[in-house]
Amino acid sequence: MGYISLDQARTIIAAALAHGGQLGLKPLSVAVLDSGSHLIAFERQDGSSTLRAQIATGKAAGALALGLSSRRIGEMAAERPSFVASLGTIAPAGLIPAAGGVIVVDEAGRAIGAVGVTGDTSDNDELCALAGIAAAKLKAQNA
Amino acid sequence: MGYISLDQARTIIAAALAHGGQLGLKPLSVAVLDSGSHLIAFERQDGSSTLRAQIATGKAAGALALGLSSRRIGEMAAERPSFVASLGTIAPAGLIPAAGGVIVVDEAGRAIGAVGVTGDTSDNDELCALAGIAAAKLKAQNA
Amino acid sequence: MGYISLDQARTIIAAALAHGGQLGLKPLSVAVLDSGSHLIAFERQDGSSTLRAQIATGKAAGALALGLSSRRIGEMAAERPSFVASLGTIAPAGLIPAAGGVIVVDEAGRAIGAVGVTGDTSDNDELCALAGIAAAKLKAQNA
Amino acid sequence: MGYISLDQARTIIAAALAHGGQLGLKPLSVAVLDSGSHLIAFERQDGSSTLRAQIATGKAAGALALGLSSRRIGEMAAERPSFVASLGTIAPAGLIPAAGGVIVVDEAGRAIGAVGVTGDTSDNDELCALAGIAAAKLKAQNA
Repeated sequence: MGYISLDQARTIIAAALAHGGQLGLKPLSVAVLDSGSHLIAFERQDGSSTLRAQIATGKAAGALALGLSSRRIGEMAAERPSFVASLGTIAPAGLIPAAGGVIVVDEAGRAIGAVGVTGDTSDNDELCALAGIAAAKLKAQNA
Repeated sequence: MGYISLDQARTIIAAALAHGGQLGLKPLSVAVLDSGSHLIAFERQDGSSTLRAQIATGKAAGALALGLSSRRIGEMAAERPSFVASLGTIAPAGLIPAAGGVIVVDEAGRAIGAVGVTGDTSDNDELCALAGIAAAKLKAQNA
Repeated sequence: MGYISLDQARTIIAAALAHGGQLGLKPLSVAVLDSGSHLIAFERQDGSSTLRAQIATGKAAGALALGLSSRRIGEMAAERPSFVASLGTIAPAGLIPAAGGVIVVDEAGRAIGAVGVTGDTSDNDELCALAGIAAAKLKAQNA
Repeated sequence: MGYISLDQARTIIAAALAHGGQLGLKPLSVAVLDSGSHLIAFERQDGSSTLRAQIATGKAAGALALGLSSRRIGEMAAERPSFVASLGTIAPAGLIPAAGGVIVVDEAGRAIGAVGVTGDTSDNDELCALAGIAAAKLKAQNA
């Protein structure tokens, strides 16, 4: 089973922030987690509000918690709000039901980590997470 | 008052996982708790996401917390979401309002423990919990 | 990087409990965690007290948290009690400074999980953890 | 009042890790926090154990919490262990009483953030934190 190295995590963050700059987005924060939801690297751009580390981490950790992107968890929350809220209570690193948290998989489709982005709309956050993963020549889980 | 032995807990888990295999379900996790909500045994199948121990435990512990199956708690959450959310905050092992957490009772109807299953749809999770309880020749609470 | 499968975790638990039986130990509890500190499997023998799941998990998770066996963390706690106590506060799954929590490594020496045992003296707990790891033909970290 | 920019935080982390490499230290983790104890940037080197983000953050956040370096808090903990333990319980990001957490001040001596390093001995961790702060042409609080 593979893993995300610190060098790859730096590439992911730099590319995600660069993508946000190209799109003219608000200040972004990007977290890269290993397969066990432990933080490898994080950056928060100047001018960001205070909870961004927890939100970025919570999007990525929530995705790993359920094996689904935080976009999918957001859709689940629209249908089953109490269920998803109850998960947030027991998730050690939080579980944020909004797009921007994307699982990274190896060639066999196994989770090797996740990326969480926050700061702009959740759709834009997710675009930046995907741009970061692609720049590191890694693969985003398609779910 | 009776109790669930470790041998019975093993039978419950093995039968629940076997039932999931027969139905072709996703990787499952199964927790068996005693009447005080303390874990007796737990197994998480290969390929599961990270939060499954907490979810399986939270379904079973929530059932014991209120004396109702987690399916019933899920129905309650649809009607009274704030009430159920407030319970999750004070429940040490969580309280997950979705089917798959089933109370085990003795002949007199007293709770002697609970089983929590997660990994597939909550309806399928519950089928596996019931299969496990039946295989151990124990009785599921009818509520 | 390798990982501990559910089958291997079952072997570890069965062998650890068998070893306790051979030594005539008190009822034991055994937790097997993946490299990210998430529970793979757990068993608590009949007659155990209530907090055993948390203690077994906390020994193993604490070992992974610092990259040291819980025996070593116990020695550290004797010299620097406030430091080790402060870690317990921020460790999501606890950090128990007493022997019985042992890291499992792959051929390259990387952590692929950990085993935590509790119930008897911590020295005996550790013997059972090591017996379990050996029975699964896995390697305990030597630190 | 000044603040630590993301660019400065990157310089601090790069220099702290480079210093660790020159000294031949174990894999390090470095957290840079703003004056409100919110994470600006973090990196964890390959091969680190799982709790390093929390420890690095807890050293820096603890320093900001009391206005003292985590080395001084460690000395305080030796004299008044119960007092320092009680603070850890109420500190949202933890309070780690061991060297390696250093406050960054502006020309007027006001705290503008803090750096926390963990991975090697706490004395070596602190050397790397100071090297990082110096590389960014910032000033460490002398206490």
